[in-house]
Amino acid sequence: MKLKIKEINFSAGKPIAMISEEFARKSTIHVDDRLYIRKNGKFAIAVVDITKGVLKENEIIVSIEVAKKLELNKRDFVSCSIAQKPESTEVIFKKLNNNSLTKKEIKQIVQDIVDNLLTEAEIAYFISSVYKSGMSLEETISMIEAIVETGKKLNLKQKIISDKHSIGGVPGRTTPIIISICAAAGLVIPKTSSRAITSPSGTADAIEILCKVDFSMEEIKEIVKKTNACLVWGGALNLAPADDKLIQVEKIINLDPEPQLLASIISKKISVGAKYVVIDIPYGKNTKVNLKQAKILEKKFLKIAKHFNINLKCSLNKIEEPLGNGIGPYLEIKDVLDVLSRKDSCYKLEQRSLEIAGVLLELTKKAKPNQGIKLAKEILDSGNAYKKFKEIVKAQKGNINNKPETNVFSKIISSNKSGKIKNINIKALNNLARIAGCPINKQAGIYLHKHLNQKTKIKEKILTIYAETKPELEHALEYYNKTKPIEVR
Amino acid sequence: MKLKIKEINFSAGKPIAMISEEFARKSTIHVDDRLYIRKNGKFAIAVVDITKGVLKENEIIVSIEVAKKLELNKRDFVSCSIAQKPESTEVIFKKLNNNSLTKKEIKQIVQDIVDNLLTEAEIAYFISSVYKSGMSLEETISMIEAIVETGKKLNLKQKIISDKHSIGGVPGRTTPIIISICAAAGLVIPKTSSRAITSPSGTADAIEILCKVDFSMEEIKEIVKKTNACLVWGGALNLAPADDKLIQVEKIINLDPEPQLLASIISKKISVGAKYVVIDIPYGKNTKVNLKQAKILEKKFLKIAKHFNINLKCSLNKIEEPLGNGIGPYLEIKDVLDVLSRKDSCYKLEQRSLEIAGVLLELTKKAKPNQGIKLAKEILDSGNAYKKFKEIVKAQKGNINNKPETNVFSKIISSNKSGKIKNINIKALNNLARIAGCPINKQAGIYLHKHLNQKTKIKEKILTIYAETKPELEHALEYYNKTKPIEVR
Repeated sequence: MKLKIKEINFSAGKPIAMISEEFARKSTIHVDDRLYIRKNGKFAIAVVDITKGVLKENEIIVSIEVAKKLELNKRDFVSCSIAQKPESTEVIFKKLNNNSLTKKEIKQIVQDIVDNLLTEAEIAYFISSVYKSGMSLEETISMIEAIVETGKKLNLKQKIISDKHSIGGVPGRTTPIIISICAAAGLVIPKTSSRAITSPSGTADAIEILCKVDFSMEEIKEIVKKTNACLVWGGALNLAPADDKLIQVEKIINLDPEPQLLASIISKKISVGAKYVVIDIPYGKNTKVNLKQAKILEKKFLKIAKHFNINLKCSLNKIEEPLGNGIGPYLEIKDVLDVLSRKDSCYKLEQRSLEIAGVLLELTKKAKPNQGIKLAKEILDSGNAYKKFKEIVKAQKGNINNKPETNVFSKIISSNKSGKIKNINIKALNNLARIAGCPINKQAGIYLHKHLNQKTKIKEKILTIYAETKPELEHALEYYNKTKPIEVR
Repeated sequence: MKLKIKEINFSAGKPIAMISEEFARKSTIHVDDRLYIRKNGKFAIAVVDITKGVLKENEIIVSIEVAKKLELNKRDFVSCSIAQKPESTEVIFKKLNNNSLTKKEIKQIVQDIVDNLLTEAEIAYFISSVYKSGMSLEETISMIEAIVETGKKLNLKQKIISDKHSIGGVPGRTTPIIISICAAAGLVIPKTSSRAITSPSGTADAIEILCKVDFSMEEIKEIVKKTNACLVWGGALNLAPADDKLIQVEKIINLDPEPQLLASIISKKISVGAKYVVIDIPYGKNTKVNLKQAKILEKKFLKIAKHFNINLKCSLNKIEEPLGNGIGPYLEIKDVLDVLSRKDSCYKLEQRSLEIAGVLLELTKKAKPNQGIKLAKEILDSGNAYKKFKEIVKAQKGNINNKPETNVFSKIISSNKSGKIKNINIKALNNLARIAGCPINKQAGIYLHKHLNQKTKIKEKILTIYAETKPELEHALEYYNKTKPIEVR
């Protein structure tokens, strides 16, 4: 079938072909089908989008990726037929039917994800298959190898590189505190973080209040050379592009299959060359895993780390409430600065940061057994961690005093009775902060005036909601009243 | 965050917002996220597409659906934040974790699918969940009710309406033959069919060679009034829009969860008001189900039909090869015409059509018990079925002598040894026909010169491949040589 090119000035970062509803219907082409497009002996495969009222039946719009490959101009004619699906769709079907995948099959899926050959729906099927059928340790290791092979590496000259990672799910920025302590202790710890995916703020979102987080590999090497550390966004570095894409599709329904969680974390540690790694595993009612699952996860982390020659320790921690007072990029970085500058306002955030830093200091033999927390506390109290953090922020072209400049609306919620804070629903607070505008609006979020088991009088402040616009504030208030995330008894 | 409208002249049939890669990155918005867009106290929710090099950071393109709702003009400014996901994403998560869904939850998913609020990836998660966790009979019935409620109905005045349906997977157009026989016998049988989804041809694609298949409800009523029957495409009638969408996403990796298959077929029968229904269940090595699965499926069909007061019978049939000689829209309709005009060239196609028509004639008491096939054969032999078919084609504004006008390239494959045809891989033949250009190119496909257990001499013709272009023919030949779908021993 011959179609006429109407437009090529369009890019979605992958090969896309837009056709008319009429042509699609008559040719029984559906959204997410693949079109095999030919011109002058060249061909390209593009994923189909179907439009209404924009194109004539014999017209097609292709994205720049297709236009370049076929050297197309407007008004050219191209031949189109339905292309076969990538072979990896059959591999996905196999996994959905509980079969183990070979190293080669896993490599193929990962490669097709990186090459943008699989659609979001196909990746969703793959993630479901891993969620429901699981993966053996061998498969998980193959997954890690494939993710690392298809990504770039941060090649630092330093031999001994440390890193930390949390399985996530709990608000509270321990990372900048841990990194500052460890780097001040002399560890080389190039930390790449994500932006928020389903949470109100990622570490990168919070750090970005103070400085840049988006650097090239070469720039990161410079920052690490200067400061022993960095606190950058990992997304643009292509360390694990397959994993980045998988996470995007996982978060669509907040699915986090265990094998994928393991592969995601370990592949990123391998890509930065980390040899000493501590994994933060919060567990509890409102977190990703309960204690039993946390212990199983720990065992798997240890087995996989051994395979890849990584000295790894897990730090399990029961979590029942956010670690700091703030939820949201700006409010969380304020907590971090309070801890580093010794304002003594976030006990749990400080305590947890010291614990994790302590594990890493012991693992790297900077501290003697059971002396890690003590050394971490000394470094924090001495002001050296704060000094190190300021160094990092400066190396990342920022300033510790930077603040967002936008206006902000706020609403204080007070207790309607006397009693004790008895229950804090972390998931509902996360949603609340997102509805208030996080992470797009950096100042949006929640400030907790009370923590678990603290007493409150009637009319005493419990929390404040911040938003950049009134509709968002009202929207958030509605959600607060519906879910009542904090219980006073 | 305020964004400027760059373009509104664009439609994908659902609310879409295109933003720049830069804005997406800084605001941590991902593909398939939902944007909450506000203007003048009105709001719309749109699914995000991320573009590269087309938009400035503060620009946005919205589809016509959004523009209309917010009464937008080019260069207007709109406020954007990340919207919450539809509640049905939580229901999908629940089902993925093996929990039963309530009638209300199922209704919500189906409604959100019809309202285009769920993305393909979210629907893929739902289909996986049904595939892996199954559905109880109650859930399946709720699904059917929801699909019927969210669709339109064909309200015919006739009280007693019959219908047939195949679970699919086998080339060979029995439908036009069965419908012609039954309508000639006096049954009212308004048949809506699909176009090809994963097969080389749907009934609608084949019928379209001879006449129109795309009619409004009112036009269909007229056709049925004139002829007792119709052979139309069901897709544009919105009889079961949720099911149409589900099928689109299922076919992405050829998944066909049993509860969804049941719901899909029964909901369509209810929507046309059918009270007598025969279900064709082909089973075997190369089909959707084996004998055991076919029997389980039969039981479920009977239970569900009873619930909805439908007189239903299943006709199980072992299938080891295509029923007719042709595979592809044009080649299949030629087989149908051969059978109807008594050319005696497709024994199996004729036999199977008579069996299914026979079941329906007995079910509706047009034939006495065990006399259905005999009556069907009489009607076929008398020429009345052929006459009826011509009436239907005429009522659908066509002519029995219509042919495609395009050129066609062909390649004959001959046997490289003497022996018997011992194995025919139906799935590989289906793929072969699609690679040759089916269903876009109506004349493309395969003609089988030999059937199972027939003798062949060396160099005798086995099959011919037809394609509209040389590259497609070559592509198909390559696939033939790789898969060797017909085995001579």
